[in-house]
Amino acid sequence: MIFPPTTLALSGERFTVTYQIRAADEAEALARARGICLEQTVETPATLLANDDIRGQVVGRIETFGPQEDGRFRAAISYAVETTAFELTQLLNVVFGNTAMQQGIRVLNLDLPAALLAHFPGPRFGQPGLRALLDAPRRPLLGTALKPMGLSARDLADLAYEIALGGVDVIKEDHGFTNQPFAPFAERVQRCAEAVKRANQQTGFHCLYAPNVTAPTDEILPRARLARAAGAGALMIAPGLTGWDALCVLRQADDVALPILSHPALLGTYVASPDQGIAHRVVFGKLPRLAGADATIFVNYGGRFPFTRADCNGVIAGVTAPMGAYPAIFPMPGGGMTLERLPEMHAFYGNNVIFLVAGGLYAHGPDLQESARQFRRLAESFVL
Amino acid sequence: MIFPPTTLALSGERFTVTYQIRAADEAEALARARGICLEQTVETPATLLANDDIRGQVVGRIETFGPQEDGRFRAAISYAVETTAFELTQLLNVVFGNTAMQQGIRVLNLDLPAALLAHFPGPRFGQPGLRALLDAPRRPLLGTALKPMGLSARDLADLAYEIALGGVDVIKEDHGFTNQPFAPFAERVQRCAEAVKRANQQTGFHCLYAPNVTAPTDEILPRARLARAAGAGALMIAPGLTGWDALCVLRQADDVALPILSHPALLGTYVASPDQGIAHRVVFGKLPRLAGADATIFVNYGGRFPFTRADCNGVIAGVTAPMGAYPAIFPMPGGGMTLERLPEMHAFYGNNVIFLVAGGLYAHGPDLQESARQFRRLAESFVL
Repeated sequence: MIFPPTTLALSGERFTVTYQIRAADEAEALARARGICLEQTVETPATLLANDDIRGQVVGRIETFGPQEDGRFRAAISYAVETTAFELTQLLNVVFGNTAMQQGIRVLNLDLPAALLAHFPGPRFGQPGLRALLDAPRRPLLGTALKPMGLSARDLADLAYEIALGGVDVIKEDHGFTNQPFAPFAERVQRCAEAVKRANQQTGFHCLYAPNVTAPTDEILPRARLARAAGAGALMIAPGLTGWDALCVLRQADDVALPILSHPALLGTYVASPDQGIAHRVVFGKLPRLAGADATIFVNYGGRFPFTRADCNGVIAGVTAPMGAYPAIFPMPGGGMTLERLPEMHAFYGNNVIFLVAGGLYAHGPDLQESARQFRRLAESFVL
Repeated sequence: MIFPPTTLALSGERFTVTYQIRAADEAEALARARGICLEQTVETPATLLANDDIRGQVVGRIETFGPQEDGRFRAAISYAVETTAFELTQLLNVVFGNTAMQQGIRVLNLDLPAALLAHFPGPRFGQPGLRALLDAPRRPLLGTALKPMGLSARDLADLAYEIALGGVDVIKEDHGFTNQPFAPFAERVQRCAEAVKRANQQTGFHCLYAPNVTAPTDEILPRARLARAAGAGALMIAPGLTGWDALCVLRQADDVALPILSHPALLGTYVASPDQGIAHRVVFGKLPRLAGADATIFVNYGGRFPFTRADCNGVIAGVTAPMGAYPAIFPMPGGGMTLERLPEMHAFYGNNVIFLVAGGLYAHGPDLQESARQFRRLAESFVL
């Protein structure tokens, strides 16, 4: 049978996804690109579609196509914004839903028009807002993590106090801290927020304590509100665990209204193959920014994870590229960093970065507060 | 510094994750396995931990380790159930959160004790419940999909009516149907549910219409309730788009209480590499079952996606393996299936399957109702 013909009057606004395609030759690559146009929209062979508005307006459209120097191919495919229903879940689906089950196809980039961006919150603070909160107009920012899982809320608060006294800007929790019996969320957040507040009163600094609110759906906002009430200065969430829309929901909760750090847990597989998945620029750059994060945690090159300089450059591009009216957000590279690497990291990232030194800060010396102080002095030395 | 010592009195209940590890030799593989034990829990070098209860009870423990015939290595690592805080989001994190950013490590299997399973809903219906609803005690079940995106609600309802008259058991929507202006959710679900109900009254069959409720967080339950009120017989959700916990929430909504189909959108990348990610058995088998799905949609071998027979056997194992008191759930293989493939699929899957023939049903012949009738006759012929 042929599907019945349809009359559609869509806006004509389209967004574009750039795909990298592996194929034996150009003809095969083009066939794969045409396959994407169908798979991501109508999921049916073109032969079943009447020669009508569904073919013309709903099926993806190849805007550019060609071979790359590395022997792969690249296709920019546009889709009507209406296919997304202006929902983040369905936008992700049109971008890569079923095609994620194919081999040799990778999402390299997303270009979203204002007509689509307007439906998503984007960052509440971004780089300028976070700099204002921290009274740090130019220098690189400092981040670390409370650890390890298993410590009591009281012990963690003691560590937070020392770190805040030393002058670190952002103290996030390890993303494995949720509501374990050995350090329940409510008690932990109360104690740590209080400890950081006490340190700030002594130093005059504006250290932000960022508890992890990654949690089951119905727990995220209650924990975020509890954190806000306790005096937390920011929040962290891992959209790979909660779903991306949970980050949107957190961003849009005006009674919370704290800066949000996006954590990469469970997202690594999307970037693990150069031939499949979704590029760093999108997963750790544009998606968290679209959904409303103010900083994106990822792993730096040369640490205990295999990210490369090119990967990290992709993240920088994703968090800073023009994207409607959204501000740029901070890259927050970590994963095995040490104070010794800061000059090199500064040379790579410049000032618009949050250095995430966690295990390396605890291991730096016997006195945690003194290690934090050295961290601060180093970062301040980069900007005169 | 060394982290302060801690006294813990955890239950001793542990769950086990089997990892496949690529390494140059056994020493490197063992070092990688030890790295997983730390990365997935304390995220800190063992040298910073006092020789105390965190090392003994929180850090992962290698239970078995050894080389495999294919030159890779395999490690079964157990974790205290308390590390998960009994939350699905944090369970996923302990299983693979940060390690997903490593190369050459793949989750092969999960073994969850009753003490952990008790915190998750599991399937409400499973195979027995779905068979009872459909009054189909033995035969393979038939599934298809409403398509394509772009058609009006009225046209889609007409297709649903023909398919239901022909005797298909489950009519799911394409997972790209959400709330687009050309077929808004409320109107579409109302019309399609009514059409299927009308067909059921004529045939005496029990066809279940399964609208897609994959949506932004705050929309999922309202749409599910609307679908229930309209007379939908089941629901579909894509946890790769919504987050896995959204499936749990849907399962636990007692005012909805419909069978749930889990859709694989955006999950494909987890299984794309034999060396990285999470095995089919887990992603398309144990996880949807744990979170509460009654059937798991995935792509069959030999269709338009590159899944193999071994991959599909993994899914079968995941949906049927003993898992506390959970019933088995249905594998629902699709992705380019045709009526011609049914005898072979039956030989492979047996009776406990929902055959998902979608595009292939529309393409089968000029009369959709007659194609559906042939589909039914074929499936009934397999069981005498």
